Amino acid sequence: MNRKLRIDAEKAAYTAINAVMPEGAVRRALLGKQFPGRVFLIAAGKAAPRMARAALAVLAVPVTDGLVISKYGHFDEPLSGLRCFEAGHPVPDENSVLAGEAALKLTEGLREDDTVLFLLSGGGSALFEKPLIPLHELQDITNQLLACGADIVEINTIRKRLSAVKGGKFAAHCAPARVEAVILSDILGDPLDMIASGPVSPDTAKSADALAIAAKYGLRLSQEAAACLRVETPKELSNVHAQVVGSVRELCRAAGEACRSIGYETVFLTDQLDCEAREAGRFLSAVLRTHAKSGKKLAFLAGGETVVSDGTDGPTDAAGGYVDGDTFDELKGKGISLHETLRNNDANHALRAVDGLIVTGPTGTNVNDLYLGLMDGEQEP
Amino acid sequence: MNRKLRIDAEKAAYTAINAVMPEGAVRRALLGKQFPGRVFLIAAGKAAPRMARAALAVLAVPVTDGLVISKYGHFDEPLSGLRCFEAGHPVPDENSVLAGEAALKLTEGLREDDTVLFLLSGGGSALFEKPLIPLHELQDITNQLLACGADIVEINTIRKRLSAVKGGKFAAHCAPARVEAVILSDILGDPLDMIASGPVSPDTAKSADALAIAAKYGLRLSQEAAACLRVETPKELSNVHAQVVGSVRELCRAAGEACRSIGYETVFLTDQLDCEAREAGRFLSAVLRTHAKSGKKLAFLAGGETVVSDGTDGPTDAAGGYVDGDTFDELKGKGISLHETLRNNDANHALRAVDGLIVTGPTGTNVNDLYLGLMDGEQEP
Repeated sequence: MNRKLRIDAEKAAYTAINAVMPEGAVRRALLGKQFPGRVFLIAAGKAAPRMARAALAVLAVPVTDGLVISKYGHFDEPLSGLRCFEAGHPVPDENSVLAGEAALKLTEGLREDDTVLFLLSGGGSALFEKPLIPLHELQDITNQLLACGADIVEINTIRKRLSAVKGGKFAAHCAPARVEAVILSDILGDPLDMIASGPVSPDTAKSADALAIAAKYGLRLSQEAAACLRVETPKELSNVHAQVVGSVRELCRAAGEACRSIGYETVFLTDQLDCEAREAGRFLSAVLRTHAKSGKKLAFLAGGETVVSDGTDGPTDAAGGYVDGDTFDELKGKGISLHETLRNNDANHALRAVDGLIVTGPTGTNVNDLYLGLMDGEQEP
Repeated sequence: MNRKLRIDAEKAAYTAINAVMPEGAVRRALLGKQFPGRVFLIAAGKAAPRMARAALAVLAVPVTDGLVISKYGHFDEPLSGLRCFEAGHPVPDENSVLAGEAALKLTEGLREDDTVLFLLSGGGSALFEKPLIPLHELQDITNQLLACGADIVEINTIRKRLSAVKGGKFAAHCAPARVEAVILSDILGDPLDMIASGPVSPDTAKSADALAIAAKYGLRLSQEAAACLRVETPKELSNVHAQVVGSVRELCRAAGEACRSIGYETVFLTDQLDCEAREAGRFLSAVLRTHAKSGKKLAFLAGGETVVSDGTDGPTDAAGGYVDGDTFDELKGKGISLHETLRNNDANHALRAVDGLIVTGPTGTNVNDLYLGLMDGEQEP
């Protein structure tokens, strides 16, 4: 094993993980920010307590009022001066609606120099809701859509119109106050209007799209629900400033910075890798083999989530693995067949035998995978 | 279809194809070269006549003597002052041996200031041979290796030792004359000792490797053949200067230069792409989607040969295809299902319907595939 490369790889990986922890991500997004008037804090999602705590720690001004909405059992210690709501996830419940109503009430009648600091993370869609129709009908329509095989884009197009907070409506409600949104992304490509159904993001779908989906699947709708589909969602929101933090893109960016700081020239390939793991490996190794003799210290970076179609390689205690030009011979020396290992999708046992596992323990964040290819720039002897 | 991008893509593709035509490749390799003494030209391989003609046209000095060895029917017009040999391919025959003997004779007893201009292309391994054992035994051993599933590296390790010209031995024979080799590569990664079994390249395998392979497969060998395996091949050749031309790497380089000349910033990924076509497409599209909104004019380049495991998409008259952000809607407008097209591996009919095929006609060269991703740097409206 090339010890030097392994140390560099781990340095980049741990720096990247730290950068996408909710605390670090919120701190960087808010550090030095000034707000002219009152500040109202609303945090919703699975990481809401951690994001809220980090915001309280970094803000230079006191928070006027605020509330934090998360899953049952996700609060550890109280958050000074903020009201906490526990609610249902992944299916919204009565408490989700209570939380949504409280958020709408808190942000009613705001002034132009007020700021709504909105901290959003995965799960926010279910935890923070205010349906425009009875909750049981919303659940029924969601079930109809799931049963007829509608995709997630279609489901969201319908649901945004049946909600008083989704599809940019929460931001529209806050106007004329300014919404400063910090969004911890858990979806590849960071589509802002998809993360938690985009409470502060303009909706890209039109009313006509929603009606077409309802017709396509023959949805059973009350008159009230049908009327909601005909109402247009906000297409522009001039009072919102949104920052996506802690996404796989930020993971890649931080890893790239770490590599540059130790002398690597970096090539950022993608943060949306989603193909077969096996083929992604072949593609990446072709890239690395091609540049291996360039004599440059190069780092190729990719992020995303590859898939395994013909087996599973988990769950294990490893967060990743390290391989280099010596791994093949080291495996051979231990009597382990590389081909067998690949055929059985059992990288875990093989890499364990050659000290190639990267074991981090729980990292406290989940933003998808990082792929890092390093070359030390030394010519072969 | 984005006409501007399509025109740029075709410009880059045709520039790249021109760069790897035998004529252009040889011309660039030899232009301005000076040779102190006599020049002996030996061309072997499928492209030998075209390479020899290009060399005659570009050399500033007359050729003292020379011979050109190619497949039956591969000569169109005579080559002034050179002897031509037609021989067997892919299985060497008596004429292959006659050609090999003629080449050895021509390069016997050369002086230090002589130059052997050696023009090698694919197929040279069979066309140009001088076995150290009877031809029928060589054929028998080759058949044994094929029958027991030996891989190409193992087969070459054996064959190099049974030949008087392979594995660097032709170059050793030419010493002390200088060998100026121009090699048209048809193997990914341009492993010099693999192209035509490397007549002018040091052998990377050792005698011990050859003996291990013979033992592993229980090869039946005559005493003569067994003795050959124990003789070491040249490990260093100080009289050779070899240039690889017309390879897929040069294809990528020329395409990259063409892109830069029309304003693109280029990222060269690999010239050894060999994974599943479908997954390579997903990987490349992830790279392109990631950078699409960067506002930069970017070109991503890859070369290689992807494979199709669950069907075939050929043979057709198309050399390639063009797709962009409009293709999906254009196919939909023609009533063509993208999913169906991909499932049936039938890009040809789908792209034909939307004018997306790239039809070059026979290009006269064969160096594998080019993958080009362009973005025009314009922000979406």
